[in-house]
Amino acid sequence: MEIKSRLNESLKTHALLSSAMELLAWDQEVCMPKKGAAHRSALMGTLAALLHQRLVEQLIPLLRESEHSSELDEESRAEIRLLIEDAEMIEKLPRELVGALSEAASTAQVVWAEARARSDFSLFQPHLEKLVQLSREKAEALGYTQEPYEALLRLYERSLLPSEVEALFRELYPFLSETIRLCDERLKETGDELPLSMPASYQRTLIQEVLTQLGYDFSAGRIDESAHPFCTGIAPGDVRITIRIDEEDLTMALGSALHEVGHALYEQGLPPAPLGWPRATPASMSVHESQSRFWENHIGTSLSFWTYMYEKVLPKYGPSWLSAYSPLTLARRVNRIQPGLIRIQADEVSYHLHILIRFELERALINGELKVEDLPAAWNEKVHAYLGLKVPSDAQGVLQDIHWSTGNFGYFPTYSMGSFLAAQLAEALTREQPDWEERLIEGDASLPLQWMRERVHRWGALYRTQTLCERATGASLSVQPFIRYIQRKVAQLYEGLSVSA
Amino acid sequence: MEIKSRLNESLKTHALLSSAMELLAWDQEVCMPKKGAAHRSALMGTLAALLHQRLVEQLIPLLRESEHSSELDEESRAEIRLLIEDAEMIEKLPRELVGALSEAASTAQVVWAEARARSDFSLFQPHLEKLVQLSREKAEALGYTQEPYEALLRLYERSLLPSEVEALFRELYPFLSETIRLCDERLKETGDELPLSMPASYQRTLIQEVLTQLGYDFSAGRIDESAHPFCTGIAPGDVRITIRIDEEDLTMALGSALHEVGHALYEQGLPPAPLGWPRATPASMSVHESQSRFWENHIGTSLSFWTYMYEKVLPKYGPSWLSAYSPLTLARRVNRIQPGLIRIQADEVSYHLHILIRFELERALINGELKVEDLPAAWNEKVHAYLGLKVPSDAQGVLQDIHWSTGNFGYFPTYSMGSFLAAQLAEALTREQPDWEERLIEGDASLPLQWMRERVHRWGALYRTQTLCERATGASLSVQPFIRYIQRKVAQLYEGLSVSA
Repeated sequence: MEIKSRLNESLKTHALLSSAMELLAWDQEVCMPKKGAAHRSALMGTLAALLHQRLVEQLIPLLRESEHSSELDEESRAEIRLLIEDAEMIEKLPRELVGALSEAASTAQVVWAEARARSDFSLFQPHLEKLVQLSREKAEALGYTQEPYEALLRLYERSLLPSEVEALFRELYPFLSETIRLCDERLKETGDELPLSMPASYQRTLIQEVLTQLGYDFSAGRIDESAHPFCTGIAPGDVRITIRIDEEDLTMALGSALHEVGHALYEQGLPPAPLGWPRATPASMSVHESQSRFWENHIGTSLSFWTYMYEKVLPKYGPSWLSAYSPLTLARRVNRIQPGLIRIQADEVSYHLHILIRFELERALINGELKVEDLPAAWNEKVHAYLGLKVPSDAQGVLQDIHWSTGNFGYFPTYSMGSFLAAQLAEALTREQPDWEERLIEGDASLPLQWMRERVHRWGALYRTQTLCERATGASLSVQPFIRYIQRKVAQLYEGLSVSA
Repeated sequence: MEIKSRLNESLKTHALLSSAMELLAWDQEVCMPKKGAAHRSALMGTLAALLHQRLVEQLIPLLRESEHSSELDEESRAEIRLLIEDAEMIEKLPRELVGALSEAASTAQVVWAEARARSDFSLFQPHLEKLVQLSREKAEALGYTQEPYEALLRLYERSLLPSEVEALFRELYPFLSETIRLCDERLKETGDELPLSMPASYQRTLIQEVLTQLGYDFSAGRIDESAHPFCTGIAPGDVRITIRIDEEDLTMALGSALHEVGHALYEQGLPPAPLGWPRATPASMSVHESQSRFWENHIGTSLSFWTYMYEKVLPKYGPSWLSAYSPLTLARRVNRIQPGLIRIQADEVSYHLHILIRFELERALINGELKVEDLPAAWNEKVHAYLGLKVPSDAQGVLQDIHWSTGNFGYFPTYSMGSFLAAQLAEALTREQPDWEERLIEGDASLPLQWMRERVHRWGALYRTQTLCERATGASLSVQPFIRYIQRKVAQLYEGLSVSA
């Protein structure tokens, strides 16, 4: 067989088996009966090991053989180089270390849940120490140019250095603080608002209606409910999302649905073939997050969207509180910019202070500048310094997120990078399609979807995040579009409130 | 690593990956959005090929190496011989033939659905010819002692010869005909009965209640709805069933639920380890079917069960028709013994005439005694001879079942063997636990479940069907217990109606 066919076959097999892992994970959260858990863990472990073995023994050698093959065009060879770069990172990790990390994380997650329930960091501490130790070994195995944390960050965002993340946050920090302070003052002047309650069955129908309107293809997807909302891309024709419903607060389910549908529209918009090649694969965590943030925030918290909701959608579901609101007060209601203790409940401004805290702490842990035993005190200190809040318990502080218990150090910054990229994409979109927000008042989201399809989705992982950003927006990734976006928003919602950058 | 550990590891991996196939198939029917179909086919094809490759290249050589190893005890070596017997059948099939059959079947199923919708056999004929031809090649590759069909039958029931199936049917046939004739006469005397209608949401709750009562563990399973009811065993802790609801007829969903829960109780009762060894695997299609038939028929159509339904269950759901029935007339309603055209709607007596027709026809096709072009005429002739009915269309005749379009020749007889085995197990159960049916009136099915757990479930595939039957009942498989069971039933339901054997 010629080399191109062998490559196609091998990449396709790898992509198909990886999509089986996606489905197994989806089923575990959505369908699996609880007594199926042990078997499922064993199955996913076996499939992961098999994928790793195929990668190392078959795929990487074949990629290396192809890299300089004259049978392939330059475009294919460029894609092969991207694949080799990614695969080499995995290859560098000794199998024993991968196994030890997986085992330690598996135990640590259970202990973390227990520790959080009892709000007692000391239970979790020895497990986190083990995970930090193993992650430091992982960083050494992967290699780095400036600091160990760099190696872990690169696993999630290939083209990003810790110093670059730091620089973006340094540029942004004064603006975030000032915005939160000013908005919080305004919010303290306004009174209590009615809760946006709605029966679960109505919420399900409403969300189905809104997501269809936004362009999510239900014949290539489905919505279920799970404890933590997520999106699973099995294939462009099979992209599923989950939501969590709170009958007291419509924005809980709607917000998570809009976030997940951003991920889903991206996956539905990927080229369906050639399977396993970069051009049919999502680009990076940050790019993925840019899509979820765009749909969640730039669309889903906009005054245009809530005008559409107020005029076209909500009246059909007749909530009693509707008459107490206007489009503007509804939009203000879903954009309460206020410091809080919990990341996943944070508004889109203070959210980045939560990420900054985690970024600085995990960077210090991995670089050996902070001991795990000193982590809770360091956490509480930063929350006080950045958010002006006192942390009343470990559960509402250092134990609130699952990420570290799974060994995922380096993941948090991609959330902020995704938001910054979303704002930059939105600004470019507005430049080219100035009336997209206007049309959103009618529920028409076709302009942003077409634009994202053309500028982001169709390229898959052909370009790294920075290059994709430059090609899509004409500029390198910056926090300035995010700042301008928030400035416009607070001026719009708070009668001319102005925050300097 | 010592040989036992290597075997355990290899069998476990094979079992785990096979259970991934089960889940992929379940999801395809229950959850998958329709645009996910092409990707799913490719994924299942890839995983199947991978499993086949592992089997041939790794597992079989390891089994052969272990077969005579002095490191293993005699019990393990006996299990290894069973595994080799099964694996060798798969090994004998050339990969090209497996691929050709899979491809032909994939196309044929689509054409079959179309042909059935248009009730036109001629559309399907060339595809069936191809499948028969390839299946004849398959039989040659597998080898046989007396006739080609033997090789295909053995794929589903290792220890059964076509001549044995024929002998059982020959022994049974006069009794079946006579019972149907006598019951049909009686039914013609009685008037129309009220349909057992019930809203879908009530049916779901009712079935949940009844299955829990019968011992199905919902923390190790779940119920969904699909076009064709089925049971999927992923692990003993994860065994799922599906049902189909007809709001006009409660017995549609309830009957299928009881059938599938028989399969499910078997899978939930298998030893959870050592994964991949015969003792943790279901025995055969016939044994599996004996369990579904036992719960569907011996429990689910019994007067005791319908007394329980009438007194304890149905009043909670308040169907308007309940007052028009008694336990006896309800039981008679679900046991209407009457000739009909459609197998899956048949009562438990005439059902076996449907199987006999298919057995004789597929045997003749595979043995080269019947041409595909002559199949519809042969079908119609047999339906007239055995059931006394004229076939009005191919859709209600030769095109009604999916099996042949999937290339599954040799599968049908296991349905009847399962019924005969169910009756034989039920008779042995009654001998040892005479009051089990009495206790069923209170909804207590613990005696039959415990007995099946002890005599059938816990042995997995350690014994072939015939041996299992002898160990469980003290006799080899026979149709006589089935005959006695039906004799008792018609005497009970039709006021002393007596049919000679």
